[in-house]
Amino acid sequence: MAEIAALAGVSKPTVSKVMNGQPGVAAGTRERVERVIAERGYVRHGAARALSAGRAGSVNLVVKEVDNAYFTEVIRGVEETLERAGLSMVLTATHDEARRHRRWMARVVEHGTDGAILVLPDEHFAHVEELRRHGIPVALVDDRGESPPGVPSVGATNFAGGFAATEHLLSLGHQRIAMVGGPPFKSTRERIAGYRTALQEAGVPPDPLLEKPGGFVAETGYEAARALLRAPDPPTAIFAGNDLQAIGVYRALYELGLHTPDDVSVVGFDDLPLARLLTPALSTVRQPVREMGALATKMLLGIIAEETLESTRVELATSLIVRESSAPPRY
Amino acid sequence: MAEIAALAGVSKPTVSKVMNGQPGVAAGTRERVERVIAERGYVRHGAARALSAGRAGSVNLVVKEVDNAYFTEVIRGVEETLERAGLSMVLTATHDEARRHRRWMARVVEHGTDGAILVLPDEHFAHVEELRRHGIPVALVDDRGESPPGVPSVGATNFAGGFAATEHLLSLGHQRIAMVGGPPFKSTRERIAGYRTALQEAGVPPDPLLEKPGGFVAETGYEAARALLRAPDPPTAIFAGNDLQAIGVYRALYELGLHTPDDVSVVGFDDLPLARLLTPALSTVRQPVREMGALATKMLLGIIAEETLESTRVELATSLIVRESSAPPRY
Repeated sequence: MAEIAALAGVSKPTVSKVMNGQPGVAAGTRERVERVIAERGYVRHGAARALSAGRAGSVNLVVKEVDNAYFTEVIRGVEETLERAGLSMVLTATHDEARRHRRWMARVVEHGTDGAILVLPDEHFAHVEELRRHGIPVALVDDRGESPPGVPSVGATNFAGGFAATEHLLSLGHQRIAMVGGPPFKSTRERIAGYRTALQEAGVPPDPLLEKPGGFVAETGYEAARALLRAPDPPTAIFAGNDLQAIGVYRALYELGLHTPDDVSVVGFDDLPLARLLTPALSTVRQPVREMGALATKMLLGIIAEETLESTRVELATSLIVRESSAPPRY
Repeated sequence: MAEIAALAGVSKPTVSKVMNGQPGVAAGTRERVERVIAERGYVRHGAARALSAGRAGSVNLVVKEVDNAYFTEVIRGVEETLERAGLSMVLTATHDEARRHRRWMARVVEHGTDGAILVLPDEHFAHVEELRRHGIPVALVDDRGESPPGVPSVGATNFAGGFAATEHLLSLGHQRIAMVGGPPFKSTRERIAGYRTALQEAGVPPDPLLEKPGGFVAETGYEAARALLRAPDPPTAIFAGNDLQAIGVYRALYELGLHTPDDVSVVGFDDLPLARLLTPALSTVRQPVREMGALATKMLLGIIAEETLESTRVELATSLIVRESSAPPRY
């Protein structure tokens, strides 16, 4: 540290501050110190680095796929948090294929890792158990609400999100509000429960014909919307299970020659970056996916540092984002 | 290998085939062998693994940002190719910040890597030079056409793409065709040259008022389209420099109460996954971004294996994808 201080022409406490990511150092000074550190091959000692001395210097993030904006947001949150801690992110897409998962596990066992973050995959219980057997710390981004007990996990408040979306449409004057569901996860059931509760509290009896099942892809939103809008008593608003479904709903409306929000209001779930880019811009329930990735990473770093976590299960708040796709019904 | 063969109940040549990723093994058998390998902690020896024995077992991919569908496609192509070679992918987003780049370099120097793939960043000459100084093999995904000589790089045929998009609009009967450019890269100049050449060959004199500068983000498409469509002699078609710009063009048309393609045809560039999900679905020039990432990875693996590359610069073909946003002009 004395050598770095001498080379950068600063005091040792200043070098220490830079290495530990503490405030109180001018930007130019910080940059000079970091340049010396990088040039001399010294390595930053963030809190996590110090604690993982002699370890791999990297954390593994496992997602189902890369070309899905939901996972991209998780990746972003994890990468930024690890970067700040001086750690690298090893990214693997398993496509929920057992073969790819086994190969990943073999690589991890051979080359080592400081820990793993899984975005809740299929067969998650078995995978978490396997990682623990190898002594690898693990944390989950669990948008399903189905984490094994005792495993650190981060989710979102799905009931509140379903409730807020429905309440918003009710407040605009809608009564015939349809909902497209998702895969049979706990989180889906919570969103549907929020939807039904909001209807009941407003004195609108839920109509089973207005609830459609669906996966979290555009195609199911498309199919559900077509069926709903061709029915004898169609809805004036559709609450889609996620933003990709909402894009499918847009497509169905477009093909039927209907306009959003003039003919049918649409609300999504997630607030992926593309939601605000759509025309009309999508009203949606924001799920703080990037922050969920960041928090799961912080929990993992806490475990690696052998800190005691305040809680192994944390749910971040969802919030309604009103844009252009929701408006009062036309009647 | 004999032990694995015995445990899986197959012959040694079969185990060898599975380990080397060769064909001629039934799916069920392959799975059984892989399960034994994973369970016993043995590691697959793909071609790259064997050649990188004693190395890091991973390759670094450096992109500007993660939340951009263009980079997501590169990530996907690189990850899939590395996975098949038995290597892990370490992913870093630099945001083109010198500080993040230096920290990345420090981590790579400390923990090692088998090679690095850069999606052409700012100051790429200096970064490539730095990696070479550390003896780290490097390949580039270079959509700008500005790689340093001798560095393996993969691009796309930009002139042909600009020509094809414009020729398509001309063939529909458009004469007033606008183009939104991009950052001042060689690739942008090639796309513009393709656009002008197609106009000239059709006997349509290029009109400087119909060429707008812009960055590769939605906002510039929006601004350019607003200016173009409010001019005295507006275009009947807009060729956007990339798909994100095209989304901005959609937004401008929406706000002006104009319809695509009835009032104005729109063609994009890239064919990001969201292009087909838009309403109307976007006609665009496909740039095979995932394949570019895969090929850069294969070139890097070739260098690691000390093979001789046939060419250090490869450009993959662009192709026109006609969807719903382009149609004959209304007059």
